[in-house]
Amino acid sequence: MIKNQEFSLSCPFPIQNYPHVLLAHGGGGRFMHQLIEKMFLAGFENPVLLQRHDAAILNRPSARIAFTTDSYVISPLFFPGGNIGDLAVNGTVNDLAMAGARPLYLSSGFILEEGLAMDTLWRVIDSMRKACQKAGVFIVTGDTKVVGKGKGDGIFINTAGIGVIEHDLTIGPLAVRDGDAIIVNGDLGAHGMAIMAQRESLSFESAIESDTAPLADMVLDLIAHKINVHCLRDLTRGGLASALNEIVMVSKTKMQIVENAIPVREDVASACEMLGLDPLYVANEGRMVAFVPADEADQTVDVMRRHPQGQGACIIGHVSLSDQPLVVMKSKIGAHRIIDMISGEQLPRIC
Amino acid sequence: MIKNQEFSLSCPFPIQNYPHVLLAHGGGGRFMHQLIEKMFLAGFENPVLLQRHDAAILNRPSARIAFTTDSYVISPLFFPGGNIGDLAVNGTVNDLAMAGARPLYLSSGFILEEGLAMDTLWRVIDSMRKACQKAGVFIVTGDTKVVGKGKGDGIFINTAGIGVIEHDLTIGPLAVRDGDAIIVNGDLGAHGMAIMAQRESLSFESAIESDTAPLADMVLDLIAHKINVHCLRDLTRGGLASALNEIVMVSKTKMQIVENAIPVREDVASACEMLGLDPLYVANEGRMVAFVPADEADQTVDVMRRHPQGQGACIIGHVSLSDQPLVVMKSKIGAHRIIDMISGEQLPRIC
Repeated sequence: MIKNQEFSLSCPFPIQNYPHVLLAHGGGGRFMHQLIEKMFLAGFENPVLLQRHDAAILNRPSARIAFTTDSYVISPLFFPGGNIGDLAVNGTVNDLAMAGARPLYLSSGFILEEGLAMDTLWRVIDSMRKACQKAGVFIVTGDTKVVGKGKGDGIFINTAGIGVIEHDLTIGPLAVRDGDAIIVNGDLGAHGMAIMAQRESLSFESAIESDTAPLADMVLDLIAHKINVHCLRDLTRGGLASALNEIVMVSKTKMQIVENAIPVREDVASACEMLGLDPLYVANEGRMVAFVPADEADQTVDVMRRHPQGQGACIIGHVSLSDQPLVVMKSKIGAHRIIDMISGEQLPRIC
Repeated sequence: MIKNQEFSLSCPFPIQNYPHVLLAHGGGGRFMHQLIEKMFLAGFENPVLLQRHDAAILNRPSARIAFTTDSYVISPLFFPGGNIGDLAVNGTVNDLAMAGARPLYLSSGFILEEGLAMDTLWRVIDSMRKACQKAGVFIVTGDTKVVGKGKGDGIFINTAGIGVIEHDLTIGPLAVRDGDAIIVNGDLGAHGMAIMAQRESLSFESAIESDTAPLADMVLDLIAHKINVHCLRDLTRGGLASALNEIVMVSKTKMQIVENAIPVREDVASACEMLGLDPLYVANEGRMVAFVPADEADQTVDVMRRHPQGQGACIIGHVSLSDQPLVVMKSKIGAHRIIDMISGEQLPRIC
């Protein structure tokens, strides 16, 4: 069996006999056993998972560990550039990366809706397998539940992740300092607009693909290059604007960003304009913001640009001291505008 | 603020202003921020969680670690003896305990349905807080998603857990040996029948309460008493019958159990009979099976009985060598019956 990340695996589950998920597939008996064996274990095969114990047993980690979780409830399940499966791997890998950790192990908890096509499930599992290989992580423990028709929405996935922190930096909002450069690794808003286009059946001249990608390699490379990384945050729900607002609230700083410096692809900008959305608030799944000392900003951008996930890296602003936490943007016409946290929600179920 | 496990906390979230979960509570903006701050952080408060980073940073563990995950989709959310919240804590604590690990940290991922009463959410959070205190674990990282009305079912919770393995035993199905005693820690089927009674609005003479409970203390005590524990399994979905069948398939052994020795409360037995269910297949949430060398069986029962969760501990059978994996029960009238894995599902969404 070729298990390369480039090739899809053929599914050992007898889809022709059981084309849809039944309640019995979550009932603890033969049906569930077969589903776990021929779907999940077949897709995610690795020595730890194959112990098939209630919990995975892992060697004593070599350092401090990072631990995170995220549930994925995206609609539609498949979208240009990805699907809920690779999203569930990359998202949790990225949460670990944002702590400066090397991602090692994932858990996966599936909540399946009765009637889900088994073929859909396999495509998701196969994507997760490829995403794990790409990110260098293993799914070592898992769980499956089935809910009745109309009590779920196809597939929900929770992944939790464990990584090791192999350096002494303290990366987080409290480490943000006066003068820090604010750097993003690429253009914003593609993931959110890929979902919206799919959901609203909009067709743009060029298809907008999600930016979903694992960011850990790039982050570890920054650390290997001795960049004094102060804070990292991936730009998911709520986009850049929400991430910066969350950080100023904890760090008690002011951030000034420059609209002209913020990369947004033209087709994404047009799509946003058409739908009345602001790309600063749109979700991404392969984009992050980094806070580093000003004199290390250029090197940070250089290191990022050497990675496929950082080719659009650029400096978008800087941090200054302030009496009140605030994000301010210098607009294209030179005016200053406060970038607030979004009040309600701009795009539901986008990640 | 009194944070004792015996007392309920009052909720700092302004429930009177926002009595129900809105889609905006999952959107990444102000609403979500308030929900996280005044519900989740208020309920689960601890120093690691309050770092509020994408991932929790934990000290280097002292030993091998165990890692597990489980999603909870139970209906109804509240039932005699518990609710989805304490179940989500105890269930994952128990999965760690079954690996012989000391549970330390949990993650919690919530999938909320739009329209859920905030008061319901708080009651669940408060139960989780109490259950964590009782089990000695901390929720150190979390995530919240909101799905539209009719796309979920009130509350789904995923918990993942990390524990440390402070001994050298290899506990698992492959360690089961010829002659091992099979021991349960108490009467079977109460959890499943408590759910069924609630769901079907059945009223029995005495209310049947769920057996939901954390089992880690009792397991660690067995290990502290130098019992050579071979295998442990908690008896959740599919009950005792499914657990034994799963283990014989991996261990390639035969198990003989004695119906007269298997403890089932009279009211649970009557309720099962009334509904045409077999208590061997009914879910439990505070029951486990242990495999230990025959000459350590009595001491195992003694140690278990000193714990509130093990007062009904007893030996129910033994393991023997076999050409084919099989679970056989000597019935009350002396006949031998094969106890098979259940084919479909006996009780949906029971845990």
